[in-house]
Amino acid sequence: MTKNELFRLIQKKKSFLCIGLDSDMEKIPEELKMYDDPVFEFNRQIIDHTHSFAIAYKPNLAFYECRGTAGWQSLEKTIGYLKNFNVLTIADAKRGDIGNTSKMYAKAFFEVLNFDAVTVAPYMGSDSVNPFFGHPGKWVILLALTSNKGAFDFQFSSNINTSRRFFEDVIAVSSQWGSQENMMYVVGATQAAMLKDVRKLIPDHFLLIPGVGAQGGSLREVAANGINRHCGLIVNSSREIIFASAKPDFAKQSQDKARELQNQMEKILIENNLLKNG
Amino acid sequence: MTKNELFRLIQKKKSFLCIGLDSDMEKIPEELKMYDDPVFEFNRQIIDHTHSFAIAYKPNLAFYECRGTAGWQSLEKTIGYLKNFNVLTIADAKRGDIGNTSKMYAKAFFEVLNFDAVTVAPYMGSDSVNPFFGHPGKWVILLALTSNKGAFDFQFSSNINTSRRFFEDVIAVSSQWGSQENMMYVVGATQAAMLKDVRKLIPDHFLLIPGVGAQGGSLREVAANGINRHCGLIVNSSREIIFASAKPDFAKQSQDKARELQNQMEKILIENNLLKNG
Repeated sequence: MTKNELFRLIQKKKSFLCIGLDSDMEKIPEELKMYDDPVFEFNRQIIDHTHSFAIAYKPNLAFYECRGTAGWQSLEKTIGYLKNFNVLTIADAKRGDIGNTSKMYAKAFFEVLNFDAVTVAPYMGSDSVNPFFGHPGKWVILLALTSNKGAFDFQFSSNINTSRRFFEDVIAVSSQWGSQENMMYVVGATQAAMLKDVRKLIPDHFLLIPGVGAQGGSLREVAANGINRHCGLIVNSSREIIFASAKPDFAKQSQDKARELQNQMEKILIENNLLKNG
Repeated sequence: MTKNELFRLIQKKKSFLCIGLDSDMEKIPEELKMYDDPVFEFNRQIIDHTHSFAIAYKPNLAFYECRGTAGWQSLEKTIGYLKNFNVLTIADAKRGDIGNTSKMYAKAFFEVLNFDAVTVAPYMGSDSVNPFFGHPGKWVILLALTSNKGAFDFQFSSNINTSRRFFEDVIAVSSQWGSQENMMYVVGATQAAMLKDVRKLIPDHFLLIPGVGAQGGSLREVAANGINRHCGLIVNSSREIIFASAKPDFAKQSQDKARELQNQMEKILIENNLLKNG
């Protein structure tokens, strides 16, 4: 999916919502346990009920890996099912290693699983990220500023040479490796004021914003500080949507929650004149 | 495996060699392609021929994930087979995410796959690493200084407040999260002179040293700068051992290469008086 196609998808659905499929076997409704693959069945019902309101889905790899081969099968079925819909698929995997190894991770996520995007960790530098480029239409989403408490351990350290905080160094340096067409950044919504500083460095890139909802970020504040002329935001919600209910009505409840967020996003897109040429 | 047990294993085998199972389907000998699971068969033969000379094995997850469910099955069989031998098993996975997600990765590697150790990325800070602790006898191996060119992008940035380089900050801060009994660090051997600086911060921790061999590090230089009173070093070699030959004699050739490294390590252990009380 190109950047332009992504913007058109946002305009069409009047939404910039990503739904995180952190599909924890221990949290899915009891009623689904009768299925051969309860996690896939859970994902399928969530997707069926929410795809009109979401432009992206983001399976969180940990919740599949923790079930071994069976989990990997649920993941393969889920990504296969998502291909029926016009959505961006994001592997939330936070990979990154030396070049020949990152090349294999790129193969795993872009070729074997056929995701559109993968989250990548920046610590090992350019040659750990570069192998993820060069797959046309595919995206690297690099960790910049995360939404957890531990973000304060290292991401705000000030570099004596650049006078920038570390997450700003990561953005400034890495933005030279790829382009707006193959690179996005993770920027935690709990740090919405920081979005202004991020936008000074990368005004035009898309940002993946976790942490709206369960992690405490405010959608309106995120938009005020981060929206750009192509929207430039993909806002994720995981647990608040997929675990809106643990009862048999879970899919309907997730739909209501997704619709509610889509409605808020539509208002924001209108206020920012982003639906006019849709 | 406790720290003491690891030291006794090193004394018993007169080796601190880790063998990296970067078992690339495209590089394994043609003769193995007739097996149902060529990668497992390759690993099995390598393990059979080298386990006397190695104290640890380190499957590199990317080379398994890039084959989807089939790759995950090869990994499960490999870790199962390794349990027949007295070795430390390391998942080279470089994971790390917000707390509830890291908890699932810990479950995947320590419970489902039953590895003894997993490599973890530091970028997201304490709450992304802490969930890996609390599994008795299991180890977090945190990335500190890596052996690739991209290490220079961020790991050497100087922090204005601590006057330390970033990899030193990572070590100094994170060493408070765990202990010598559940934490090691990745320190690239191509930076052997830096080992001295690392040892000032963590004189007693075990270090996992990649990059001896194909990545250009020198074993003797690593030992001179990094060895401590419990050895404190696990030196990895991957491609130089497992792909020593692409012919039917590959397992024998890998054995010769592993023995050669073990011999060098034995000399180093003797020179450092580490075999006396073995």
